[in-house]
Amino acid sequence: MTAIKNPQESFVRVLYEFPKGLDPERQGRVLSIGQTVGSVSGETAGRFAPYQGILESVALLPNGRGQARVLYPAQNVSGDLGSLLVMILGKYSLAGPVRIVSLELPPGYGTKCRTGFEGIRERVKVTGRPLFMGIFKPALGLSPDDLARILREVGEAGLDLIKDDEILPDTPASTALSRIKACRPVLEEIERARGRAMLYAVTLSGRADRLLEEARRLREAGANAYLLSPFAYGLSVMEALASHPETNLPIFAHPAMAGALGGSPDYGFDMRVLLGTLMVHGGADAVLYPTSAGNLPIAPETERGIREILQSSGLAPVPSAGVHPGALPRFLPDDDTRIILNAGTGIMDHPGGPAAGVHAFYQAWDRMRNGGSFSPETLPDGPLREAVLKWGT
Amino acid sequence: MTAIKNPQESFVRVLYEFPKGLDPERQGRVLSIGQTVGSVSGETAGRFAPYQGILESVALLPNGRGQARVLYPAQNVSGDLGSLLVMILGKYSLAGPVRIVSLELPPGYGTKCRTGFEGIRERVKVTGRPLFMGIFKPALGLSPDDLARILREVGEAGLDLIKDDEILPDTPASTALSRIKACRPVLEEIERARGRAMLYAVTLSGRADRLLEEARRLREAGANAYLLSPFAYGLSVMEALASHPETNLPIFAHPAMAGALGGSPDYGFDMRVLLGTLMVHGGADAVLYPTSAGNLPIAPETERGIREILQSSGLAPVPSAGVHPGALPRFLPDDDTRIILNAGTGIMDHPGGPAAGVHAFYQAWDRMRNGGSFSPETLPDGPLREAVLKWGT
Repeated sequence: MTAIKNPQESFVRVLYEFPKGLDPERQGRVLSIGQTVGSVSGETAGRFAPYQGILESVALLPNGRGQARVLYPAQNVSGDLGSLLVMILGKYSLAGPVRIVSLELPPGYGTKCRTGFEGIRERVKVTGRPLFMGIFKPALGLSPDDLARILREVGEAGLDLIKDDEILPDTPASTALSRIKACRPVLEEIERARGRAMLYAVTLSGRADRLLEEARRLREAGANAYLLSPFAYGLSVMEALASHPETNLPIFAHPAMAGALGGSPDYGFDMRVLLGTLMVHGGADAVLYPTSAGNLPIAPETERGIREILQSSGLAPVPSAGVHPGALPRFLPDDDTRIILNAGTGIMDHPGGPAAGVHAFYQAWDRMRNGGSFSPETLPDGPLREAVLKWGT
Repeated sequence: MTAIKNPQESFVRVLYEFPKGLDPERQGRVLSIGQTVGSVSGETAGRFAPYQGILESVALLPNGRGQARVLYPAQNVSGDLGSLLVMILGKYSLAGPVRIVSLELPPGYGTKCRTGFEGIRERVKVTGRPLFMGIFKPALGLSPDDLARILREVGEAGLDLIKDDEILPDTPASTALSRIKACRPVLEEIERARGRAMLYAVTLSGRADRLLEEARRLREAGANAYLLSPFAYGLSVMEALASHPETNLPIFAHPAMAGALGGSPDYGFDMRVLLGTLMVHGGADAVLYPTSAGNLPIAPETERGIREILQSSGLAPVPSAGVHPGALPRFLPDDDTRIILNAGTGIMDHPGGPAAGVHAFYQAWDRMRNGGSFSPETLPDGPLREAVLKWGT
């Protein structure tokens, strides 16, 4: 094991995990050299040592899997996430199964968020309770006028935030600009009526240059939040979005494609790295991820890990997928209110309509705070009871 | 199975594969609805039908795995690869194991390459033989002057192309601009001396906006090719690079991170989709991929599939990783010369130095064409024999 000569220097620290049968020490050495100087001869050993990765430790887990912790000099990369990914996984990803289970970056590495959870909370003027976010549904096929009508309905009912579905990009049938133009007057109306803003995260799409240009135009036209899928468009695109003065709006990062990078137990990244660490250093303000109480498979400890990483850096966790009013206590683990709870059909498909869906969430929040039961026979008639009868608790 | 009402319309056709135990018909229906309209009620069935995906067929393979072929209306996406990935895999990737094994796009979808294999071949004025490409090694720590010295040596020896290592980004110790400034005069010298150009693909790095801006500056400063890792930076960034008049240079796409998206047999994408189809529609001119005769694991039929997809669209295949002179016949399957053969240490670590590494490749090509043996006892003294003694055949 190589001793660390200058521990005060800036390093990227990566914990890799390998399936049973692969020697973690051997793989750790391959990574520390192959992902830095490339090969070591007598000459390179001296002159190129400052660039070489360091195998810090190896471990064999009780289940037979191996781990190797490698330190990479931060000077080897450009301070961005693209060159980071090339260094820490890059070509080595083609060598066989390997999974990055933890990633520690120098504090200032990458791009920091500008708004964060506190900034979002200030804009919608909510404290002491979770924020509630909706999704326009159906995902495709609604006209800008449809969106404006739904927006008015849920805004008047008190919804804090709303977003496009991530699969609604900029298309001739529904340009992002037409959506903002139709919704901006309604957002202003809602803010006047209730004295606090409502955020609408509009989906960004297109090749990188057009996406960034469109983001500027949308903000000029009155957009007040962005929705971006960084694993489909590139973390480097989110970094750019989070950096320009003309695109200074809260960024909601969507986990689309994250399963391709983190679903397998033997390849890619742990979800805490993808939806936690890389978001913190990639400029996201709020991050959507599957809740373990919802309809997508995720372990509770993985969800907790993501939430803790986001919150410790001031980002907003946005548990999503299968969220509905009756199960509110399960969606707010540890009574944590520093989150944005995101519901699509759980609001829009409420038997009483979208406004009733919003009311049901507020009723659920009141009931939860007061320790009330959610069993249907104890619930008074109204939106929450209807929601529980449809979706359960 | 839903009949296709308007087969003449433009569709994206995706073949999904699922592990044994998952019902492909059920998953195919979930995809066709969940990745388009979201949910289907009585109302949506009519009005939103034009947006809905179509489950075209399902199959159960002899090994128990299931397949589902889904058609998505191309009007649901923006014509770019980012919104495509969100639609065809996106959120569904978080639902469990699924692998995209084939992807068919409308011919004009995405971004077409501008230079392609023919354009590259015209620039370096080579016909009737494979092109030879080298990589500056060690990957990190060489000064611009070191690079210029190595470049002169291999250029005079007749190397057609050279590239940075993908892990050499823009850093204070080696800015991309300093590399181009040091190498441009040498490239001009080489072109004057041998009457044909040599290409040097410089690594692009940084967050998306800076990367694109840097690409413009590098071209102004004399760069004549780019190296980009689209799976680390974003396919949307490659599309942008391939579109601007001020970045009109051949793009060499590096497969860094492709293993995280395509290594697992149950998740992500088949390598033919990643390194074939998505490159064709993402604007790459040349695509690096592991050769099955090299030191990274890839099945020969996968390699052949990648090569055929690239060549059928005019892109240059660049088999890489573990390429050395003695095994040339194995690196040129079917005597195919419409490729760029890429060697790093196989040139730079030749016992006689980089120029001898280049000579060894030309000797190997001559010998192969004339049907000569590569066994060391039959080889005359010289660079090829030295290479065979070091790396074998």
